[in-house]
Amino acid sequence: MMTEQVRKILSYYEGENPGVRTNLARILNHGTLGGTGKLVILPVDQGFEHGPGRSFAENAAGYDPAYHFQLAVDAGCNAHAAPLGAILAAAPAYAGEMPLILKLNNHDVLAPDGADPAPAVTGSVQDALRLGCAAVGFTIYPGSAQFKTMYQEIRGIAEEAKRCGLAVVIWSYPRGSGLSKQGETAVDVVAYAAHIAAQLGADIVKVKLPTAHIEQEEARKLYQAREVPVASVADRVRHVIQSTFAGKRIVVFSGGSKTSEEAFYEDVRGIQAGGGFGSIVGRNSFQRPHDQAVAFLKKIMAIYAGK
Amino acid sequence: MMTEQVRKILSYYEGENPGVRTNLARILNHGTLGGTGKLVILPVDQGFEHGPGRSFAENAAGYDPAYHFQLAVDAGCNAHAAPLGAILAAAPAYAGEMPLILKLNNHDVLAPDGADPAPAVTGSVQDALRLGCAAVGFTIYPGSAQFKTMYQEIRGIAEEAKRCGLAVVIWSYPRGSGLSKQGETAVDVVAYAAHIAAQLGADIVKVKLPTAHIEQEEARKLYQAREVPVASVADRVRHVIQSTFAGKRIVVFSGGSKTSEEAFYEDVRGIQAGGGFGSIVGRNSFQRPHDQAVAFLKKIMAIYAGK
Amino acid sequence: MMTEQVRKILSYYEGENPGVRTNLARILNHGTLGGTGKLVILPVDQGFEHGPGRSFAENAAGYDPAYHFQLAVDAGCNAHAAPLGAILAAAPAYAGEMPLILKLNNHDVLAPDGADPAPAVTGSVQDALRLGCAAVGFTIYPGSAQFKTMYQEIRGIAEEAKRCGLAVVIWSYPRGSGLSKQGETAVDVVAYAAHIAAQLGADIVKVKLPTAHIEQEEARKLYQAREVPVASVADRVRHVIQSTFAGKRIVVFSGGSKTSEEAFYEDVRGIQAGGGFGSIVGRNSFQRPHDQAVAFLKKIMAIYAGK
Amino acid sequence: MMTEQVRKILSYYEGENPGVRTNLARILNHGTLGGTGKLVILPVDQGFEHGPGRSFAENAAGYDPAYHFQLAVDAGCNAHAAPLGAILAAAPAYAGEMPLILKLNNHDVLAPDGADPAPAVTGSVQDALRLGCAAVGFTIYPGSAQFKTMYQEIRGIAEEAKRCGLAVVIWSYPRGSGLSKQGETAVDVVAYAAHIAAQLGADIVKVKLPTAHIEQEEARKLYQAREVPVASVADRVRHVIQSTFAGKRIVVFSGGSKTSEEAFYEDVRGIQAGGGFGSIVGRNSFQRPHDQAVAFLKKIMAIYAGK
Amino acid sequence: MMTEQVRKILSYYEGENPGVRTNLARILNHGTLGGTGKLVILPVDQGFEHGPGRSFAENAAGYDPAYHFQLAVDAGCNAHAAPLGAILAAAPAYAGEMPLILKLNNHDVLAPDGADPAPAVTGSVQDALRLGCAAVGFTIYPGSAQFKTMYQEIRGIAEEAKRCGLAVVIWSYPRGSGLSKQGETAVDVVAYAAHIAAQLGADIVKVKLPTAHIEQEEARKLYQAREVPVASVADRVRHVIQSTFAGKRIVVFSGGSKTSEEAFYEDVRGIQAGGGFGSIVGRNSFQRPHDQAVAFLKKIMAIYAGK
Repeated sequence: MMTEQVRKILSYYEGENPGVRTNLARILNHGTLGGTGKLVILPVDQGFEHGPGRSFAENAAGYDPAYHFQLAVDAGCNAHAAPLGAILAAAPAYAGEMPLILKLNNHDVLAPDGADPAPAVTGSVQDALRLGCAAVGFTIYPGSAQFKTMYQEIRGIAEEAKRCGLAVVIWSYPRGSGLSKQGETAVDVVAYAAHIAAQLGADIVKVKLPTAHIEQEEARKLYQAREVPVASVADRVRHVIQSTFAGKRIVVFSGGSKTSEEAFYEDVRGIQAGGGFGSIVGRNSFQRPHDQAVAFLKKIMAIYAGK
Repeated sequence: MMTEQVRKILSYYEGENPGVRTNLARILNHGTLGGTGKLVILPVDQGFEHGPGRSFAENAAGYDPAYHFQLAVDAGCNAHAAPLGAILAAAPAYAGEMPLILKLNNHDVLAPDGADPAPAVTGSVQDALRLGCAAVGFTIYPGSAQFKTMYQEIRGIAEEAKRCGLAVVIWSYPRGSGLSKQGETAVDVVAYAAHIAAQLGADIVKVKLPTAHIEQEEARKLYQAREVPVASVADRVRHVIQSTFAGKRIVVFSGGSKTSEEAFYEDVRGIQAGGGFGSIVGRNSFQRPHDQAVAFLKKIMAIYAGK
Repeated sequence: MMTEQVRKILSYYEGENPGVRTNLARILNHGTLGGTGKLVILPVDQGFEHGPGRSFAENAAGYDPAYHFQLAVDAGCNAHAAPLGAILAAAPAYAGEMPLILKLNNHDVLAPDGADPAPAVTGSVQDALRLGCAAVGFTIYPGSAQFKTMYQEIRGIAEEAKRCGLAVVIWSYPRGSGLSKQGETAVDVVAYAAHIAAQLGADIVKVKLPTAHIEQEEARKLYQAREVPVASVADRVRHVIQSTFAGKRIVVFSGGSKTSEEAFYEDVRGIQAGGGFGSIVGRNSFQRPHDQAVAFLKKIMAIYAGK
Repeated sequence: MMTEQVRKILSYYEGENPGVRTNLARILNHGTLGGTGKLVILPVDQGFEHGPGRSFAENAAGYDPAYHFQLAVDAGCNAHAAPLGAILAAAPAYAGEMPLILKLNNHDVLAPDGADPAPAVTGSVQDALRLGCAAVGFTIYPGSAQFKTMYQEIRGIAEEAKRCGLAVVIWSYPRGSGLSKQGETAVDVVAYAAHIAAQLGADIVKVKLPTAHIEQEEARKLYQAREVPVASVADRVRHVIQSTFAGKRIVVFSGGSKTSEEAFYEDVRGIQAGGGFGSIVGRNSFQRPHDQAVAFLKKIMAIYAGK
Repeated sequence: MMTEQVRKILSYYEGENPGVRTNLARILNHGTLGGTGKLVILPVDQGFEHGPGRSFAENAAGYDPAYHFQLAVDAGCNAHAAPLGAILAAAPAYAGEMPLILKLNNHDVLAPDGADPAPAVTGSVQDALRLGCAAVGFTIYPGSAQFKTMYQEIRGIAEEAKRCGLAVVIWSYPRGSGLSKQGETAVDVVAYAAHIAAQLGADIVKVKLPTAHIEQEEARKLYQAREVPVASVADRVRHVIQSTFAGKRIVVFSGGSKTSEEAFYEDVRGIQAGGGFGSIVGRNSFQRPHDQAVAFLKKIMAIYAGK
């Protein structure tokens, strides 16, 4: 049964074809949060991004891609995102169990790409189709001198993916020589990055939970003049959501406090209060032992479910 | 949760890519029979095949394609099959609610195509993708002098569909100058037709419930010699299932006794007893008033569920 | 300003992309009936279909394609439909004045194609784009032994046209050895033809105003049993509209009584009363002198406007 | 200098791109009649169409394709039309001397194609470009059961040719089982054939000079009722010109009286009086000795020039 | 009804196909200034170009792309220009209400691209077609070391767009290490930039209102020698218009005095007096509250309308 919440969100996507809307619905209607209009996604590309040891030594079960599929099933996540190889390895055994997001570009820390990185395209729309995925994922680094390459890659990929009925998820991570380290999570920069992703045609936007820092001088003046509140997590999430077509695009957040579980849940409450659509929780979940990870994810889902 | 029954069926399809298996799983896991390994599909192409009046005057709500989507949802069918126009009209409002099968060829009774008909191709794999379908459907008429045209059309379509992760459903209806009218539902002919569909790459085969008539002289002699039982519905279904790769392809049956509801249910019990995977029920459901149709379909599902 | 009537009609087309919906809106919002949800289209392909003399000798101004463009402007028609050559000749001078429908196939009476004709494809989607058209038009002859050729031609054309944002208009004219002459306009056959066009993906369906004759024996029995009223023009139009997705596809009617103008207007009132979306008036308008044609068309529009 | 006459003719072609208009201007501005808005074309495809002996034994110099190029130059024709091989053979020596029309399809009398012929496509748009042609030529046979094949071939060829800036000349020759022998040159049929060519996108239409015979019963009634004059050559030419977009497409005529030179000139005077754009003169010129042919063509041009 | 003013402007575009001319006519004939030959366009790509906060915090309603569509409708603008995401989000609800220009490349201020920027291509011609746009927009930065990349991108895009009947709008913004900051709006540089855009095939050129500064030494000498007047806004606009094919390409101006509304209107009067075709007004309109923005835009239109 289609709920009012999901029906409302889908109404924002009338510019997309029924195939894209079907795959968005598959994600929104799956798992513990299915039908609430909120979502929790389990992404596992850290093996590629940071190396397998750094990613999985903490919980060695995670070396096996199938582990993450099972974790997403057990926790009732809305979807699981991973690069080509991992999905190729585990998708057959999990066919039809859960919406999948094929991460179509990746970056590794071995590459000496300096201050202005750009990931490599490592999969195709055709891969996503033959592997049964509901969406493709792509990372852009606004702030990198290589922005033009990345934006143009996702432009072509998004056009092809949507023509084939796949939804498009953009990870928008500010990074590059145009930004300070602190600026990468500055509220003005994160809001800007989310906006860029939406303008590039993202159906789902993924950003980091922003800090109260404001990176751009012009933005700071204006935020003060217009009294744009950025003090609390909820304030900042609200600003990001507003910056992403006034709430008419699904935005999910990664990151959050690492000081304690309670502090993390508090951040989730802030995302919820600020109108965020959910969380994408990677290392913080899969680096814990299986049962703790499930409990942790279920607690997050309970907050989004308003329980 | 993936059940043992579905997992076993999917194991027959390891030659297909994970996309095809995902879409088979979507169909097998959806609706009232989800997870049982049995399926009931609501097909509505009769408006095209026999004319709108003959199809829908009986229950005028059926003129609206959306009615059938809702009926399939209300009855908990595993999937709904329809031609391009109907899916184009109703899919947006039902995005994500149910697996769809896009019927890619159609035939109408106005056409003076004599004893050896061939349907027209009326949709494409690309249509199925952008409309969010889980499978494409195609009708072949074994026994028609135009068999070569039809077999070659589905060959190309199936290749493309599967490359894109879509499952392939073949309606295999013996018809043509090579057959007597009685022969169209003869048990040897139906078994043969199901086998041809499987050989053409069908993931799901749809045939009519066969009679005890044996059309081919050579077949009759052999069936008698080898004592192939064809007396009961269960016997004949068992023979069809066996003929379709020894049960390793999903075969669903249409038709069934029209003398009474009870007789129809008895046929369903026969399909169940013979190892059939389910039913595809069109006119017999949508020509009844909505609530009666739902009750009728739910009763059929209850039989398949072993209740 | 978008009216409620047009907004409602456009809501039936959410399966189409915004480009197709924009072009449907252009047609629905243009001319005297703009915004009413009703439409009157001026088609002039008779020069090709019946020969120039038979078409234009009556009113020799009509030999010039530009005459028909001007007539459509002067009368305030919603759109003008014509074959490639005529649009190529007159479109430059009328660029932007009126939505155009490029007729993509044509048939002539010199061709000895017997009882089962099929028109020739005489233009392309690319032609329609470079000539600034809002839609492409295509004729099918349900009932012809060549149905497969025609249905497959429009399938490919419609897919390409819609991908490019063009709307698709199908002229569905029953004709062929499968039908009696009387059967070509029989109410059951016309309703069937309209349904086929909709299933083939037509955004706008064009049929002839049906008579009370019922061609198919099975249809006749059922209509009587179910008391489907077909006595009046309004009854028959209502049945056609219902048969075309329960009113969710635009259906326009050609033909109508030739006995007198008043009888023709009475037919238009019947179309209006039966829920028809409008008329497509060719020879009956352009074979009259200009001012009489304008007055005639304006009178028809006044009826649709409820004046 | 562009003359008023040519400027006016080119204004009919504003739907074509500047490349097509440039090539039309090249033809209209070349030779003795350059700038007058009238044209005389020398076509030589009779070797292919009727065999070399029947075509050239009369004047053996004509076996050499170069002879016809030189004849066209010497006589001051606007253009020379020929099949691929002839142009390939002679174009190098005559590059830039005269606009060329590459005849893209041809038919021979050896082929046993019965009552409903269709020529073979024997050259390409690419051939025309690399050989420096100003236009491509194509023959259709309205009235042949193979009309669909021919119309669809020229549709594709014309689209490609025009995209490359080449003008399109259609030879429209009624022929086929739908017509009597007399009907092939009937005034109603020739007018219809010219109209069909224009609707197919011809920039220049070539038809046979029609007789006063009226083939179609419906046409005859209407012509009488509307008093369409067809008694004189000028009357009939006027009707053909009118039928071809009211004079807005260039129409040239072949044929003409064979009883005497004077009778032929009288026909040309009729074409001129009826508003025809010129003549296309093949056998009647190249089967004469060179100097007589030049004189003959120059006399025709003088009539068109009003001298 | 086509006015003389629009007809005259369209006559400059006879080199374009009827599709492009139709879309130019759609823009010229829409809204309050429809038919006057003048135009006011509402562009909103500032969210992408400068960040959402800096663009919309001033008037928070503007975070929603639909707000700008409504503003353009309410003010009676000729067209609305925006990037892919915004049009995807709002076009369905506004299908057919207003000509749209899809901005096909974009740049953001997070990118550390130094003195010689180049935007990223963020949409396609195919996107514009399926979203129902009348034109595509593209920004070039003459003066950037990356000019070759940008000019070649628009060359390919313009070719494809025009083949599909879409008009091409070029934003020509001098910027790069070859220019001083003051030089970016110097009258000689702006005139040069407009000329480059026209040479690249722009149907509509968009430049900033130039200052009296002359950047290039050679230009300065010549302007003085030839007494090219650049003292007033009207003088400078006249020079830009003249530089863009002597007034035969539509040029619209952005920018204008920010000191007061009256000063801005005075600039508009200067554009009007200098023969400019209109204004493209972004931030100056959408950063005001809705009703003030409508009043402001209507006042500008009144000036262009000569009221």
